[in-house]
Amino acid sequence: MGILSGTDLTAQEPMEGKQSSKFAQQLAQTQKDFEKILASELSVPLPKDMAGGFSHEQHKRNWIYLQTGANLYTLTGEAKYANFVKNLLFAYTDLYPGLGLHPSRKSYAPGKLFWQCLNDANWLLFASEAYGNIRASLSMQEQEQIEQKLIKPMADFLSIENPRFFSRIHNHSTWACAAVGMAGLAMDDSSLVSKALYGLKHTQSFEGQEDNDGGLVKTRKEEGFLAQLDFAFSPDGFFSEGPYYHRYAIYPYLIFAKELNRKKPELQILAYRDSILKRAIFSLLNQTDANGLVFPINDAQKGMSWNSRGMIAAVNIGYAYMGKSPVLLEIASKQDKVMLTEAGRIIAKDLQKSNGKRQLRPSISFRDGWDGSKGGLTILRAASTPDQELCMVLKYSSHGGGHGHFDRLSYSLYDEQGEVFQDYGAARWVNIDQKGGGRYLPENKSFSKHTIAHNTVIVNRTSQNNGKIGKAEDVAPYVYHARENKEDYDLVSVVDSLSYKGVKLHRTVIMLKDPVFPKPLLVDLFRGSSGAKADWELPFWYMGQMIKCSPPLHQEDKLQALGKSYGYQHIWLEAMSNVSVANNHFSWMANKRIYTMYSWNPEGDKWFMGRLGANDSNFNLRRDPVLIQSKEDKKEVLFINCIEAHGSYDYASEIPASPYGMIEGIEKNYDSKKYLCITIMHKSGRSWRIIQANENPSEEQNHKLEIDSRTYTWKGPYHIITKSKNANKDE
Amino acid sequence: MGILSGTDLTAQEPMEGKQSSKFAQQLAQTQKDFEKILASELSVPLPKDMAGGFSHEQHKRNWIYLQTGANLYTLTGEAKYANFVKNLLFAYTDLYPGLGLHPSRKSYAPGKLFWQCLNDANWLLFASEAYGNIRASLSMQEQEQIEQKLIKPMADFLSIENPRFFSRIHNHSTWACAAVGMAGLAMDDSSLVSKALYGLKHTQSFEGQEDNDGGLVKTRKEEGFLAQLDFAFSPDGFFSEGPYYHRYAIYPYLIFAKELNRKKPELQILAYRDSILKRAIFSLLNQTDANGLVFPINDAQKGMSWNSRGMIAAVNIGYAYMGKSPVLLEIASKQDKVMLTEAGRIIAKDLQKSNGKRQLRPSISFRDGWDGSKGGLTILRAASTPDQELCMVLKYSSHGGGHGHFDRLSYSLYDEQGEVFQDYGAARWVNIDQKGGGRYLPENKSFSKHTIAHNTVIVNRTSQNNGKIGKAEDVAPYVYHARENKEDYDLVSVVDSLSYKGVKLHRTVIMLKDPVFPKPLLVDLFRGSSGAKADWELPFWYMGQMIKCSPPLHQEDKLQALGKSYGYQHIWLEAMSNVSVANNHFSWMANKRIYTMYSWNPEGDKWFMGRLGANDSNFNLRRDPVLIQSKEDKKEVLFINCIEAHGSYDYASEIPASPYGMIEGIEKNYDSKKYLCITIMHKSGRSWRIIQANENPSEEQNHKLEIDSRTYTWKGPYHIITKSKNANKDE
Repeated sequence: MGILSGTDLTAQEPMEGKQSSKFAQQLAQTQKDFEKILASELSVPLPKDMAGGFSHEQHKRNWIYLQTGANLYTLTGEAKYANFVKNLLFAYTDLYPGLGLHPSRKSYAPGKLFWQCLNDANWLLFASEAYGNIRASLSMQEQEQIEQKLIKPMADFLSIENPRFFSRIHNHSTWACAAVGMAGLAMDDSSLVSKALYGLKHTQSFEGQEDNDGGLVKTRKEEGFLAQLDFAFSPDGFFSEGPYYHRYAIYPYLIFAKELNRKKPELQILAYRDSILKRAIFSLLNQTDANGLVFPINDAQKGMSWNSRGMIAAVNIGYAYMGKSPVLLEIASKQDKVMLTEAGRIIAKDLQKSNGKRQLRPSISFRDGWDGSKGGLTILRAASTPDQELCMVLKYSSHGGGHGHFDRLSYSLYDEQGEVFQDYGAARWVNIDQKGGGRYLPENKSFSKHTIAHNTVIVNRTSQNNGKIGKAEDVAPYVYHARENKEDYDLVSVVDSLSYKGVKLHRTVIMLKDPVFPKPLLVDLFRGSSGAKADWELPFWYMGQMIKCSPPLHQEDKLQALGKSYGYQHIWLEAMSNVSVANNHFSWMANKRIYTMYSWNPEGDKWFMGRLGANDSNFNLRRDPVLIQSKEDKKEVLFINCIEAHGSYDYASEIPASPYGMIEGIEKNYDSKKYLCITIMHKSGRSWRIIQANENPSEEQNHKLEIDSRTYTWKGPYHIITKSKNANKDE
Repeated sequence: MGILSGTDLTAQEPMEGKQSSKFAQQLAQTQKDFEKILASELSVPLPKDMAGGFSHEQHKRNWIYLQTGANLYTLTGEAKYANFVKNLLFAYTDLYPGLGLHPSRKSYAPGKLFWQCLNDANWLLFASEAYGNIRASLSMQEQEQIEQKLIKPMADFLSIENPRFFSRIHNHSTWACAAVGMAGLAMDDSSLVSKALYGLKHTQSFEGQEDNDGGLVKTRKEEGFLAQLDFAFSPDGFFSEGPYYHRYAIYPYLIFAKELNRKKPELQILAYRDSILKRAIFSLLNQTDANGLVFPINDAQKGMSWNSRGMIAAVNIGYAYMGKSPVLLEIASKQDKVMLTEAGRIIAKDLQKSNGKRQLRPSISFRDGWDGSKGGLTILRAASTPDQELCMVLKYSSHGGGHGHFDRLSYSLYDEQGEVFQDYGAARWVNIDQKGGGRYLPENKSFSKHTIAHNTVIVNRTSQNNGKIGKAEDVAPYVYHARENKEDYDLVSVVDSLSYKGVKLHRTVIMLKDPVFPKPLLVDLFRGSSGAKADWELPFWYMGQMIKCSPPLHQEDKLQALGKSYGYQHIWLEAMSNVSVANNHFSWMANKRIYTMYSWNPEGDKWFMGRLGANDSNFNLRRDPVLIQSKEDKKEVLFINCIEAHGSYDYASEIPASPYGMIEGIEKNYDSKKYLCITIMHKSGRSWRIIQANENPSEEQNHKLEIDSRTYTWKGPYHIITKSKNANKDE
C-alpha cells in the first residue's frame, strides 16, 4: 500500500493553477457566509447549559468558527480571518483561567467549558488546529497569552488532571490524546506531544468505575494515541463500538495523524500497524448502505451518513494521503462537501476528471477485538445492476462497551433504497434538548439495547447474558463458515454458545444468486438447542407496511404489552396467529419495494405482530412494527425463513412490478444432530436443495448422506444442489 | 389567452433540425426498450381476472404497446412499428367479436376486455389513437377488418349499449366520450364523433342507481363531451372529485381535444367555455405540493404526482397549444418524461433554453360547482426562499360524488418536503391484488371517508351529514372572507351551517407573515355553536414523531379503540391528558423539520393521542398518529391554535436549528357573539392582536370595539394590530 506523504497548504504557498469547481464553489460560499460571523459580536458565555442549551451550543459554534476562520486564512492569506481567530481565542483567555468544573456535574468526567471533558477535548482539538494555522501571524506576546492562559492549561486539564478520561482505550480518550497532541504540535511543545502519543504513565486504577453510558472506565497499561491505534481497532480496522462511534472517533485520529505526518514524518504514523488508519477508513465506509447511511449498530442515531464531518475527513484524507482509491473518489462525488484543506483540494480536483462510474462494494467480513479474536461483522452485498442492491449485515462482534447492544447473531437487511429489516439503533435524539437534554433516553436501556429489539433469537424472554455488560464483554461468537463474492452464493454461518447459559445458537445466512431472481434470495437458517425446554422467539423488525400474511391474524379488542421486562414491556401485541400449516408467508412493502418472507413452521408455532409504544407516554420510541415467530417449550428448534425481494410499485403509474413472490414452498427433508437438509421450490419448477453439516466446519471433510433414497456426497460443511425445471439431473 | 393551433408530427414530415436532448434521449431509450416487445410473442389472453390479475394487466400493457408502437412509427417512419401495431390490433379482432361480458360481474357497468367498462374505454382510447396514426399504412381490407371487428363494435358497446356508463357527468363518461370520439376521428366516422360530442339523446333514467364507489348514476339532459366540459369543471377549472381523479380524467379530455383541434379546428375546442381546458390544467397543477405530489383530497392514493401520464400530458399539451407558460416549463423540467409526440418535442426544445428559474406559485382559491356556487378550495402558499415553503389547503367544496369525503373545513399543511398535517387519502392499494384486488378496501368507508379522518371539527362523534352522500352533495359551505398574496397576511374564513343539523361552524385560517418568522405563522380559529349542548373534537393528523407535549400525558396499560363507529373504531387511544392550564403546546418533528402547535384551552379541555390500527387485523390502514382536542358538553366552543414552523435538524452534523418555537403565549381578550379578539405574544416582545367580526363579512362595514379599556376602530371583518417590543404604539 502506497502511503503518500502529505503537505498542507499554507498562506505562503500559492494555490495550484485552476481550482477545482467543487472546492472553489465551497470556498467562495464559505467566505460569503463567514462575512456574517466577522460582522457579529463574539459570544463567549459562561458555561452553564447541558447539550442543546445556549452556552453549550455557542461554544460548539465557536470551535467551528475557529476552524473555518483559520482555514480561510490559510487559503486566502487575508489578515481579517487571522484577526478573527486571534480575537476569539483572546476572548477565551479571559474566560478560561477563572473556570472551575462545569456546574452540571452529570458526567463521570466533567469538563470546564462543557458538561463533559469530551466536549472540552473537541474544543481543544479544533482550537489547536486553528491556532497552529495562524500562529506565525501573531507576536510573541500574543502567542504567549494564548498558549499560557488557554491551550496549555486546557491540555493539562484534559490529560494529567483527568487520567480517568485520558487513559482509556475508548473514543473519549482518542479525542483527548488527539486534542492534547494537536495542542503540542501547534505550540511546538514536545512534552505534550509525547504525553499524547505515549500516555501519562500514571499508576491510578479505575477498575469498577463506569462512564455515563455504562461503559467501564478500566484502563490497561498501554495508553496514549499509539495505544489507541493498537487496541481500539481490530486488525481489519473494525471499531468495537460500531460505525456510528467509529465515524465520531475517526476524526481526531485523522486530524492528528495528518498533522503528525507533516510535522513528525519520521514516525510514519500512516503506515503504523500495517496501515491501521487506512484499514479503519475502509472498514467505516463499508459499514454504510447504498445511500451512505451508517449501519445503526449498537447505540447509534439513525440518519448519520457519509455527509458527516468524520466521514468527509475519512474520504478526503484517505484519498489524498493513503493511495488514491477510486472507491473514495466515487463516495466523494456523493458527499455534500469537501474539506477546506489541501486534502479537500486534492480530491475535488480529481473529482473533475472522474468518470463517475459506480464502484460496487463486495461482500466483506471484519474481525473484532484488537487481536482479531472477538467475533466480528459480515456484510453480504450483491448488486445485479448499479441501482439494484441487496445488503445483509450480520453482527457477531464483541459487546461494544457501554454502547453495545445484546444483539448477537442479529442481522439487518438493506436494499438500494434503505432498510428492509432494521436495527432499531439508539433511543436518543442527539442534541434535542426537549428529549432528555439530547442524551440517551431511559428507553435506550429499557428497550433499544435488549435482544428483542434486534433480529435474533431470544430465549425465555430474557436478553443475551441477562442484559449484563460485564459478562457480555468477555465472550464472542465464532464463525462456523464464510463464503464471499462467489457467483452462485455467499454465505456466513456463526455459532454462539455463550450468550445464553446452556444454549447453542447457530445461524446461517445464505445469499443465493440465481438468474431467476432479480436480487438474490436470502435464506436464513437458525438452529437452537438447549439442555432444558425453553421458549424461543425470532423477531423481524420489517420496515414498511404489511401487504399480506398467510396465516390468519387475530386482533384483540384491547391491546396489551407483550411482557413486563427485557424490552417486551414496550411492545404492544397488535395481532397474532396460531400457525397451522407448514408453509407460510408474509409480504410487505418497504419504500416502493415489495418483499415476501417464506417460512417453514412445525405445528405449534405462533406468529405475533408487535408494535412499539407501550409504556412510553412520552413518545420516545418510534411506533415501528415487528413480526415475531415463536416456538414454545422446546429443547431443539429450527427457524427456516427465505426472504425474496421480488416486486416494486410506481406511484405515478400505479403499476406494481412482480407483486407476487415466486417461491412455491419450502420442504424440510432432513434434520438430525449432524445434518440439516431443506429444499426451496420456485414456481418455475426450479429448486435448491441446501444441506448443512451441523457439527463439522472443516472444508476438507467428506460427507455422505441419504435423503429420500438418494445419496449425496460432498466435501465441506455446505452443499447446495440446484435442480432445473423438468430436469432429472442436478445442475 | 393565445391558443396556438396544434399540428401533429406525421411520418411524412421531417423532424425539425436538432432534436432536444430530453426528447431525443427518451426516444432513443424507448426504441431500445421496444425491441424486446417487438421480439416477444403477442399475448392477448381471454378476459378473466380482476385488476392486478394477469389478463387485466396484460390488456393494460397492450394498450401501452399500441400507443408506443404508433408513436415510434410516427416519429421514425419505420414499418416494423406499424406492423407491430397492426398485428396486435389483428389479434384483438380475433378475440373481441366472440366476447360476452367479463365473467367477474362486479361492476355497475361490466366491460368485455376488463371487469369494468372504464378500462375498456381506456383501451379503446389508446387503440384508436394508435390506429389513427398507422391507418394510412394499411390496405383498405386491413382497415375494414380492424374497424368493423374491433373499433366500431367496441365504440358501440361503450356508448349506445351502455348509456348508464356513457351519459353521466363523471370521469367514467369522459373516458367513454373521448374513446368513442377518438374512434370516430380515427375512422372518419362523423356519426361516432357526433355521439361523442353531443351524447346519445337517449331517454333512459338511472335515478337512484349507484356505481361501485357509492356515486349516483344519475344523468342530466346534457350529455357528451361538450357537456362534460360544461359541467364537470367549475368556472375556475376545479374538478369536484378532487385532483387525484382530475389527473385521471384530464388525459382523455386533452387527447381528444388535441385531436379535435387538429381535425375539426372549426370547433375551437381549446377556447371552449372561456378556455376551460387551460383552466382545468392550471387548477390541477396548483393542487400539488412543492415536490409535485397531488393533494390527496377525497379518495386518492398518496404518491400520485406530476410524473403521472395525465399530468405530463397536461403540462406538454398545455404548453404547446395553450400559451407557453413558464410555470409549465418549470414543471416539465422536474417531470421524469415528456410525451413522445409533437407537444413533447415542443416543450423539450424550450426546456433547453429555459433558465430553470423557480416559478413561485401564489395563494389561490377555486370555486366548485359547474356554476361556481358550491363552495371551493383555498390554497395559501408562502415561500420565503425557493426551498422554504409553507402551504395550507382548506377544503370547503361540494361533496365530490362517490369519491367524496366528509371533510368540510378541514385543511392539510405542507412544507417544502411534504406533509405536516395530512389528509389520510383513500384506504386503497391501487392494483395491488393482495389488498382486496386493488380496489377500495372496506376501511375506505369505515374510516377514510369519515370526518374524524380529517383535520376538522367532529360534533358528537358522528360524521358530517351523518356520513350520507345524498345529503352532502346538495350543500356546501360559503366563504366568509378571503385575502390572498398580501405582504402582511393571507387569510381564508369559511362558514358551514349545513353539515351538522343546528350547528354553525366557522373556521378562519391566517398565514401571518412577519420578519421574525422564517416561515409564516399559521393561526387557526375554529368557532362552533349549537342549539343543544354537544361534544366537539378537532383532530390534527400530524406527520412524524412527537417531541414534547406540554400537558402531561397518561397512557393506560391496555389500549382501547376511541369509539365504535364513524371511524372512531379504528383509532386506539394511545394516551390522554386533562389540560389544566390555558396555554399549551405540542412539538413534533416531520421529516427533519421541527414544528410547534400552541393552543389556548379553557378549563375542561382534553387532549387525546390516537393511533390508527384498531379493528384492522389485515393491516389495511397505516399506523398514523393523531392529536385530538376535545371539548365536552358545550353549546359554544372556540378552538385557538397557532402552528409555528421554526426548526430543523441535520442528521449528519446532529445539529438542530431553532429547536424551540418562539411563541410566548396566546391570550383570549374578547369573545362575544359579535367579536373575537386574541393576542399572540412572541418571545422577542412582539405581539399580534387579531380581531374578527364574527357576523358581518362586509368589507365596507365600520367597527368599533373596546378591549381592555382601549378602543379599536376599523373597517371590514378583520383587524390585525402588530406591536413591537417596548413600543407603546402599534405598527
